[in-house]
Amino acid sequence: MQVDEPVRLPRLSRVAVCGGTHGNELSGVYLVREMLKPENRKEDGGPASVLMVLSNPRAMQQCTRYVDTDLNRCFTHATLNGPASEGAPYEIFRARELNTLLGPKGSRAAVDLICDLHNTTANMGLCFIAYSDCDWVCLHIFRHLQMPDTPMRFIHFDVSTKESYSLDSIGKHGFAMEIGPQPHGCVKSNIYTAMKEGVQHMRDWVSCFNSGCVFEGGPVDVFTMVKNLDYPRDGETRNITAAIHPRLQDRDFCLLRPGEPLFQTFSGETLKYQGDEALYAFFINECAYYEKGIALSLARKRRVTVPSIRVQTDEEERASEESFASEEEE
Amino acid sequence: MQVDEPVRLPRLSRVAVCGGTHGNELSGVYLVREMLKPENRKEDGGPASVLMVLSNPRAMQQCTRYVDTDLNRCFTHATLNGPASEGAPYEIFRARELNTLLGPKGSRAAVDLICDLHNTTANMGLCFIAYSDCDWVCLHIFRHLQMPDTPMRFIHFDVSTKESYSLDSIGKHGFAMEIGPQPHGCVKSNIYTAMKEGVQHMRDWVSCFNSGCVFEGGPVDVFTMVKNLDYPRDGETRNITAAIHPRLQDRDFCLLRPGEPLFQTFSGETLKYQGDEALYAFFINECAYYEKGIALSLARKRRVTVPSIRVQTDEEERASEESFASEEEE
Repeated sequence: MQVDEPVRLPRLSRVAVCGGTHGNELSGVYLVREMLKPENRKEDGGPASVLMVLSNPRAMQQCTRYVDTDLNRCFTHATLNGPASEGAPYEIFRARELNTLLGPKGSRAAVDLICDLHNTTANMGLCFIAYSDCDWVCLHIFRHLQMPDTPMRFIHFDVSTKESYSLDSIGKHGFAMEIGPQPHGCVKSNIYTAMKEGVQHMRDWVSCFNSGCVFEGGPVDVFTMVKNLDYPRDGETRNITAAIHPRLQDRDFCLLRPGEPLFQTFSGETLKYQGDEALYAFFINECAYYEKGIALSLARKRRVTVPSIRVQTDEEERASEESFASEEEE
Repeated sequence: MQVDEPVRLPRLSRVAVCGGTHGNELSGVYLVREMLKPENRKEDGGPASVLMVLSNPRAMQQCTRYVDTDLNRCFTHATLNGPASEGAPYEIFRARELNTLLGPKGSRAAVDLICDLHNTTANMGLCFIAYSDCDWVCLHIFRHLQMPDTPMRFIHFDVSTKESYSLDSIGKHGFAMEIGPQPHGCVKSNIYTAMKEGVQHMRDWVSCFNSGCVFEGGPVDVFTMVKNLDYPRDGETRNITAAIHPRLQDRDFCLLRPGEPLFQTFSGETLKYQGDEALYAFFINECAYYEKGIALSLARKRRVTVPSIRVQTDEEERASEESFASEEEE
C-alpha cells in the first residue's frame, strides 16, 4: 500500500445514538426525545440507518444517575455474560437488553457505531471518550468536527475490549460524547445545542463516508488517561475534607505541574499536587464521581497521526467478510 | 423620636446557623460540619451563642434534596401544628423537631436569628432571602456585608408569617443565605469561601450590635418576588419542551423586558417573554425547581430606606418584654 492510499474500512450501515444512559444528564435525554419525534424520524437521505435509544428509562423517570447501580459500568464481558439472579440490580437486566438490541458485544451482529451522549459538571467543553487511540472512524469523526465556540478534546481510556465497561463499547466502533459544564438534572441551551450539532456532524460524516468520500488524514491530539486522584478524606467518616483549589477549578485540560495548588481544605489550607510528572487534568470536580472516589483525572497528551480513509467497495467488503467469517470458524 | 435617633432593637442572644436543609446543597453541609469541629467551637468572644445545626441528616446521607418531601416547605403554622399520622413524611417529623429546638415559631422562646445556608444552580451570586422588607436586623446585616468579588442582592418573598414555609421563618429574625452557581451534590471552593465569609460577617455584625454599636441607616435595593414562570411543557407527558434562552441563562437579576427572548425550544425556536411589565429575573434554571414548575422567578426592585439601629439598654429591654408579655396575655 502506498503512503497516500487511503485505508479502506467497512461501511457504517447501522448507527445508534443513545441518551439517558445516566438518567439525570439531560442534554442527551432531551436530544434523543426530540429526534424520536415523528417529524424528525424521516431518514436524512444518508445511506445509514440511525437508531435512537433512551438507555435507562427508570433512572430518567426519577431524574437520577441510576436506580440500583451505574448502567455505564455494566457492559463488561463478565457482567453481560455472567449469571444473573432475580434480585440483581435493574441496570444489569437493562444492560443485557441493550446488548441484545445493539450488540452482542464483540460479534458481527453488533451495530457499526454507537454515540452515547453524556453531560458533566466539569468545564470540559465537548469530549469524545473512546477505548482506542487507533479507531480511525472515531478519530476521523472527531477530527472533522467544526465548533468554533466549543473547546474539543479526544480522551482515550486504555482499557481492553473485554474490560471496557461502557455502553459505547458494545458497538463495532463507539465513543461517548461528553459535554459540560452542566449541572445534572438541568438543561442549558448552549450545551444542548453543542450536543445537537455534534450529533448532526456525526450523522453527516457517516453519510459522507458511506457515499465514498475520502477523508484526508492528519494529526489529532489524544489525551490518554493515566490515573485518578481522590479528594482528601476524613479517616473515620470518609467525608471529603477539601474541595478542588479555586485556581484549578474549571481549568480542565490545563497542565498540572508538581507543586501546583490542587485542593483547598475546608479550613482554608492549600494542598499541592504531589505527583512527579506534569499531567493534564480533566473531569475536575465531576459531581457524580464523589462516590467513586475521583476528584479529577490526569492524562498524558500525545499526537496521533490518523491515515486517510475511505469506505470499502462492495467487492472489498465481501472479501473482508469472508476472511472475518473464516477467522470466526477457526 | 428625632430623625437621627437610632431605632432600639432587642439583643440577639441566640443565633442559629443551619446547613443541609437541602441535603445536596453542599457548601452549607461542609461549612456547618467545619464549624462543629471542636477546635472551631470555642466562642469568638462575642456575647451571642451560636448554635450550628445540620437540618436534614437523612437527605445529607443520601446526597439528595430531601427524602420524602421538601423540608424547607414544612415550616408553615399548619404543617407544624396539624395532626401527624405515623406514615407522615420524614421531613414533617424533622420540621417539628427543629421547631422544638429553634422555635416554637412565633413564640418568645424562639431563637433570635436564623441564618439558613443554601446553594442554587442559578448564577445568583450571594442573596439574602427574607419574608420581610422591614426587618431592620436582616437588612442591616445585608447592608454591611462587604464582598468585592461577589454580587449581592436582597430578595423579599411577600408571604405572611403564618404562611411562611421555610426554616428561617421559625426564628424571631431569619433569612436564607443562597449562593450560586453550584451544581447540587458538588462543592466549589469559591462558593464555599463566599458562604464562610458571609456567615463570619453575620457573626461579627451580631457581636458588634450586641456590644452597643450604632449602625447607620441608608438605602438598600430590595427585589420583591412578583411571580414564577414555568417552562413550556408537552400537554401529554408534561416533559419540558424548551430550555432557558442562551441570552437569558446566567443573567440573574437582569431586567427582562416584554418581547425579549425567554426560552429556546428543543427544536431551536425562540420564545419571547409575553408579560407586559419589565421585571428582574432570578432563580433562572434552578435545577431543583423543574419539579416545582418554576423556570425562573420575576421581581420588582425598589429602594428601602433602613433606619439607624442600636441594641436596647437592659432597661429598655425589660420594658419591651413586659409590654410583649401583656400582649400575649390579652
